[in-house]
Amino acid sequence: MIATLKFTTLLLAVVVCRATQDYGYKDVEEPTLGDSQYGSLWPLPQKVQMSTVAFKLSGVSFQIVDAKESSSGASCSLLQNAYRRYDEYIFPISRMQGQNKKKAFASVSELQVWITSADSECDNYPSVTSDESCECPGMMFVFLVGALSQVPYSQSISEYKSINRTEIQDFPRFTHRGLLLDSSRHFLPIKVILANLEAMAWNKFNVFHWHIVDDPSFPYMSRTFPQLSQQGAYHPYTHVYTPSDVKMIIEFARLRGIRVVSEFDTPGHTQSWGKGQKDLLTPCYSGASPSGSFGPVNPILNTTYDFMAMFFKEVSTVFPDAYIHLGGDEVDFSCWKSNPDIQKFMAQQGFGTDYSKLESFYIQRLLDIVTTTNKGYMIWQEVIDNGVKLKADTLIHVWKGNQQQYQAEMARVTASGYQALLSTPWYLNRISYGQDWQAAYKADPQDFNGTDAQKKLVVGGEACLWGEYVDATNLTPRLWPRASAVGERLWSDKDVKDTNDAYSRLIQHRCRMVQ
Amino acid sequence: MIATLKFTTLLLAVVVCRATQDYGYKDVEEPTLGDSQYGSLWPLPQKVQMSTVAFKLSGVSFQIVDAKESSSGASCSLLQNAYRRYDEYIFPISRMQGQNKKKAFASVSELQVWITSADSECDNYPSVTSDESCECPGMMFVFLVGALSQVPYSQSISEYKSINRTEIQDFPRFTHRGLLLDSSRHFLPIKVILANLEAMAWNKFNVFHWHIVDDPSFPYMSRTFPQLSQQGAYHPYTHVYTPSDVKMIIEFARLRGIRVVSEFDTPGHTQSWGKGQKDLLTPCYSGASPSGSFGPVNPILNTTYDFMAMFFKEVSTVFPDAYIHLGGDEVDFSCWKSNPDIQKFMAQQGFGTDYSKLESFYIQRLLDIVTTTNKGYMIWQEVIDNGVKLKADTLIHVWKGNQQQYQAEMARVTASGYQALLSTPWYLNRISYGQDWQAAYKADPQDFNGTDAQKKLVVGGEACLWGEYVDATNLTPRLWPRASAVGERLWSDKDVKDTNDAYSRLIQHRCRMVQ
Repeated sequence: MIATLKFTTLLLAVVVCRATQDYGYKDVEEPTLGDSQYGSLWPLPQKVQMSTVAFKLSGVSFQIVDAKESSSGASCSLLQNAYRRYDEYIFPISRMQGQNKKKAFASVSELQVWITSADSECDNYPSVTSDESCECPGMMFVFLVGALSQVPYSQSISEYKSINRTEIQDFPRFTHRGLLLDSSRHFLPIKVILANLEAMAWNKFNVFHWHIVDDPSFPYMSRTFPQLSQQGAYHPYTHVYTPSDVKMIIEFARLRGIRVVSEFDTPGHTQSWGKGQKDLLTPCYSGASPSGSFGPVNPILNTTYDFMAMFFKEVSTVFPDAYIHLGGDEVDFSCWKSNPDIQKFMAQQGFGTDYSKLESFYIQRLLDIVTTTNKGYMIWQEVIDNGVKLKADTLIHVWKGNQQQYQAEMARVTASGYQALLSTPWYLNRISYGQDWQAAYKADPQDFNGTDAQKKLVVGGEACLWGEYVDATNLTPRLWPRASAVGERLWSDKDVKDTNDAYSRLIQHRCRMVQ
Repeated sequence: MIATLKFTTLLLAVVVCRATQDYGYKDVEEPTLGDSQYGSLWPLPQKVQMSTVAFKLSGVSFQIVDAKESSSGASCSLLQNAYRRYDEYIFPISRMQGQNKKKAFASVSELQVWITSADSECDNYPSVTSDESCECPGMMFVFLVGALSQVPYSQSISEYKSINRTEIQDFPRFTHRGLLLDSSRHFLPIKVILANLEAMAWNKFNVFHWHIVDDPSFPYMSRTFPQLSQQGAYHPYTHVYTPSDVKMIIEFARLRGIRVVSEFDTPGHTQSWGKGQKDLLTPCYSGASPSGSFGPVNPILNTTYDFMAMFFKEVSTVFPDAYIHLGGDEVDFSCWKSNPDIQKFMAQQGFGTDYSKLESFYIQRLLDIVTTTNKGYMIWQEVIDNGVKLKADTLIHVWKGNQQQYQAEMARVTASGYQALLSTPWYLNRISYGQDWQAAYKADPQDFNGTDAQKKLVVGGEACLWGEYVDATNLTPRLWPRASAVGERLWSDKDVKDTNDAYSRLIQHRCRMVQ
């Protein structure tokens, strides 16, 4: 299927795009800049054969059309939408300016797209089983549109776009290639999210992990509990995501083959929930009396579970994806410990003083609730570290530790038979001076001691951009092209790891994204 | 005089501005966020007395006018221009939307600006002797416009702007408060430079150090030597600064009390010069024959000095500032060493194998040339480290080493009687995770072992943003508000160094800049 129709124009100002020399400080060694035999392809397809035979693409007559034999065509708006986008990527200037160019000789005037799968998924929401592969056996015939718009090159502004005869066979290495954005620490305006969905598509990411709420703010506008954003957002009507905002983001993503997985993290990271939902959080005590501050979700009240059932019922309908991310990370026990009602409950349940048992008690009931919505769930690694019983198809999201520790965790998780997702080496909010994309590029989610069966349980990974220090003013340039490194790691063959070759392609890919 | 009329609107998209909680990694400790008694003033004036008596500013009737007693008024376009800008800063929304607000009681409806100096400098280019001080003895009368637009606050969108009765007496600690931008490694479009001049004004920077050319590209379009940019720019007509571009930037800066000091760095960092100026650079040798590559400016040819004389004659007229930055840093001797003609010249001059003597020979002749243009000069510290004889009013720009080393250098330079300028701790291109503005904030250019006389020779400092990894896509958010820390260090009293207080004010100052 055509889920690899992925591209973007970054919504950025006029920009210069050249490789620059290095000067002064060097913290990370700079790769050698040469020419890649693969030109500017990013991420590198699984199989590419480029010949030196060049054709010209006519800016006047070139068009993307449905192949006669295609199982999908004019009625597929997703496809037509993609054709239009790709046409603009390939001829951004000449068509916009309406230049009347002379007809080129030996030119390519048509790109035929031949959908071979029986189910074109034109109107469907993408899923983990969506077929993202493609074959491009002869340049004049069927082409992967994604690859094509990367192949044309123009040597000067006055020239036609040219294209080398190229055969591409492509499919992703991992099914889950995600990017996490955090809209709680700083609110992210819709257009920032859309710009990044475009950039994700250009880098063949297929999961937008929307860490939508957290301690600092609750911008998700709930129909069932409107007080949550009314009280918990930074501003009750300028800094919220309305139901129609959410719909628009999901549709924009769908047209680019991207799933939207929402995260509603509990029982920790919920300070902002408490503002609009009375009795949801645990009252902390200072000695014998309440201190006035609140801790994690209160796990001992039935009202908590009534709330969660209603809330997640709504979430499961608003977000069509088959998965919900339930968080479960970094639960601070000190408030629970201070609360006499919690202490009594612990004793009744026979938990002793092991508060991770209380956490598991909560998570277990939450999972039971979410299971009734027929959704699968993703959770942060702490949940399994604490021994909570999970459904077999749960995705465990590994994010902690140094290299040795996360590799051990990947081994443990997969040895237990769970699917795993890696993020530890891809916390892209952690910036440093110089070309720090290289460390992200070198990390590999299957690089741990384990059997082939264990390796198969690794479904992919996610780049994360936590929001402490990013907002609309700096998010996009801080994230890209660094996230492109993760994009290639998750898409291309595991042996694609030559940083010099990658550097050469990435520089050109960045320029393309900026344009 | 009114050279402190400094403000900006950062050309940025819709943005959320709230303090956020910290989460996850912490590399730099976060300051405590409280309320500053100085509200959101940045940089902190030398003397502030805020009372709790509040007045309202009427969005309908408020205006900035010339005081009757003022020595400058309606005929001063610089002043009128500033009034208009400040009016827009204070009432960005209400006036733009043309809201018809009811008249406020007890409101301030006028800001009278009283210029007391005999020379209003309305049409002049700012200089090191420009008077940047101001007094604001009674709120209803004379006011520092710069301070005023920071004092008003609005508690909600629907409210009037309010202002506390405040008395401010202000003047800068240092006369040279600079920011270096590098337009050679990546070309910076005009609008990026203008946006940063605005931001500089908001932070009371008064020198734009324009590192305009360097090894990678030569975007300065010279009337005398048009081939320099024709051959040496990234693109001969899209990636150059034309004479009118340069004029516009200088005028835009002048209206904000900012000097533009251009840097044409020689004899190193000149690869791009060689493309458009034959025989300017030294041919490097590989054994007995030229290798085809080139080194620093060739110091042994008369044609070199003929070129420099003509070139700097042009530069001295294009840039009205009293100073030119002549560079002189990081000269690599290996190419000179390889060249037999240079070797012969060294022997003739009796330089032995000390190539720093050859460098000094070049610099000395260059300084003689520039002296004939009646300009003062700034140079990087290497020039004085190598013992070149300098005019007494030369500014030595210190940029190398760790804290101990740069403090020793500041001591050495000032002990020799030269004026010094510090940049080492303010290389803001060097990013790291977290609140790294604090290190920049703590550095102090007068913090070294030396006499009072030596300390007085410290004229200020410059924040530097070298261009290896910045271009139009990321420059502004990478630089601000980090550079604001340097702005306050160079403007406010040396005892203003409470990072908690600064953090509280800086957060609000950032929001104001973003808006």
